[in-house]
Amino acid sequence: MKLDAIDGLIIDLDGTIYLGSQAIEGAKETMAHIRAAGKKVVFLSNRGNYSRRMCREKLAAMGIPAAAEEIILTSTVTASYLLDNEPDSKAWLFGDEGLHEELKSHGVQLAFKPEEADWLVITLHESLTYAELNSAFRAARNGARLIVTNEDKTFPGDGGECIDVGATIAAIVHTTGAEVSVVVGKPSAYMANAALRSLGLPPERCLVIGDSLHSDIALGKRAGIRTALVLSGSTTRERAEAAEERPDYIWESISDIRPMLESARGE
Amino acid sequence: MKLDAIDGLIIDLDGTIYLGSQAIEGAKETMAHIRAAGKKVVFLSNRGNYSRRMCREKLAAMGIPAAAEEIILTSTVTASYLLDNEPDSKAWLFGDEGLHEELKSHGVQLAFKPEEADWLVITLHESLTYAELNSAFRAARNGARLIVTNEDKTFPGDGGECIDVGATIAAIVHTTGAEVSVVVGKPSAYMANAALRSLGLPPERCLVIGDSLHSDIALGKRAGIRTALVLSGSTTRERAEAAEERPDYIWESISDIRPMLESARGE
Repeated sequence: MKLDAIDGLIIDLDGTIYLGSQAIEGAKETMAHIRAAGKKVVFLSNRGNYSRRMCREKLAAMGIPAAAEEIILTSTVTASYLLDNEPDSKAWLFGDEGLHEELKSHGVQLAFKPEEADWLVITLHESLTYAELNSAFRAARNGARLIVTNEDKTFPGDGGECIDVGATIAAIVHTTGAEVSVVVGKPSAYMANAALRSLGLPPERCLVIGDSLHSDIALGKRAGIRTALVLSGSTTRERAEAAEERPDYIWESISDIRPMLESARGE
Repeated sequence: MKLDAIDGLIIDLDGTIYLGSQAIEGAKETMAHIRAAGKKVVFLSNRGNYSRRMCREKLAAMGIPAAAEEIILTSTVTASYLLDNEPDSKAWLFGDEGLHEELKSHGVQLAFKPEEADWLVITLHESLTYAELNSAFRAARNGARLIVTNEDKTFPGDGGECIDVGATIAAIVHTTGAEVSVVVGKPSAYMANAALRSLGLPPERCLVIGDSLHSDIALGKRAGIRTALVLSGSTTRERAEAAEERPDYIWESISDIRPMLESARGE
């Protein structure tokens, strides 16, 4: 196959470029090849507890340079959603520092008290306290609508699967009777549109590369973007081949794109 | 009415004897009258994040002496449940320090690692951390059964309603698919039986005094114990009088027992 028709790559991070704090083997060299081949790139991640700055620094430390506009996180898209749809609304944030940094950098208005919030934004919070849980509860109890970066129940972390943002969402929903109004993360159209807008390309000239069938591949299928599943993250070959919506390509890792880049250039 | 037929009083704490850190007006003097009248007493509370020692000290500071055996908390009854039913099982605890103190004082065996636990005990945790949430998640994910001191969604705290143990139960249940096996708290038979056993009296010679229709009054109704609802806590007179299962008495506060004690003695 040829990649000539592909001008933009939408690349997942966790499980595709790195695992925890380790770059996946060959990711750095492959990204250099992709750049040399002149492809446009956007990194698209369901992480809402990171800011673009934090993410960019993490990539730089792995020898993978990226411009701020080339990184789109769920925290980024949550900020855009609020500014695009309700610029005068005030948000209360329940999540790690990266969420705060990202929303502030976009100029999202924050409520001074939970009771005054129009929106409660929830993302993974690995340094949560009871006081913060209680403030989020009070925001929801007083009518703040729930916008969540993602709904995952677990994520692969140090020492095995870890409890994810689904836990704190359930805690708030169960105790207040509130419902989740907006789920920002992949495979949503919010994330697909943000990626395509950043690339400035139509879906048929792009390729999604990621390790998750239900977030990365599903996003591509819904948005009419071709898909490559990598087996370097959370999905096994068995599950990939048994999937109802099969990816266009199944690769061991992102490095498998290299022969295709070369044949494209060689012609 | 006469209290001659009543030899034992089962008295709730939050909303009946104190509110937060403040004793309810007249509670101290009324307890002295109850003691002088020769009534047996047990304090019965759904608090699972306190130990009997902590509770006894709190009462003593309010001028209300109580023996350790006169205090029964859900943490106490959780310990008895585990020791009576599965003495060889190992528990993982997810709650405030008082839970740990109480279970250790009874000799409940604790698991060294969450993955090894037979039971996950959940109570209110006002100093929770993500690491503790994650350990509880791992216990449940690895098959530990859930025993919870109570299932309340909120409790009246400083500055209004606060998020209660229902939040952390929902977080664990939602992310693991586990179900709650045992709910210890009032109105359960576990709590009623523990109180009657401590008093050494049959139900018809006891009276439950408490501020909650669905925990105190319901416990009395189920166990065949007469009931007095006090309006010094979470229930209004309107709600009390509209209740499907009406308490035998409705009192402004526990002080309303005093004329009845005196007429009993006067005869």
